[in-house]
Amino acid sequence: MEVDGTLLTILGVAAGILILSGWVEQIYKGYKTKRLKDVSKFLMIFIASGSILWLIYGVIVEDVFIIGTNASGIALMMIVLVMKKIYDKRLRS
Amino acid sequence: MEVDGTLLTILGVAAGILILSGWVEQIYKGYKTKRLKDVSKFLMIFIASGSILWLIYGVIVEDVFIIGTNASGIALMMIVLVMKKIYDKRLRS
Repeated sequence: MEVDGTLLTILGVAAGILILSGWVEQIYKGYKTKRLKDVSKFLMIFIASGSILWLIYGVIVEDVFIIGTNASGIALMMIVLVMKKIYDKRLRS
Repeated sequence: MEVDGTLLTILGVAAGILILSGWVEQIYKGYKTKRLKDVSKFLMIFIASGSILWLIYGVIVEDVFIIGTNASGIALMMIVLVMKKIYDKRLRS
């Protein structure tokens, strides 16, 4: 299939923005309610681990959208994980 | 860069399995506790929307791992979303 670079750019950027928005929203909701108890820590751990592999994959195939989305996603997931750790500890004490 | 197909296969499959495991774990935790209140519905809505675009991206660049991971991911996120809807409703009543 002949690949339209502009279409791929739009798709990649829009997909990346949407996925990152999901994590930003989760950070915002967690910050507002000071609760992330129902969020599984393994959701972040597994997806971030997978994202590290995607990142390597992106580097190999030289795909800037795979690299960008996964690098930013990993950072946001680590924020959710740290927030969860703090809020869960507060709930217990 | 010359691309090693076997390495890409391993990376793509492992990344896909890890990311899907994260959502399976969230489904399991939600099912066990019957609570998904702290999980933002927009986490699933935004990420699934982004995944639909990744899916289209994957179809265009003919990348079976992007297609497979995103298609399965969307299904799992929809399950979490429906479970959340049910459990949140129970909490309110």
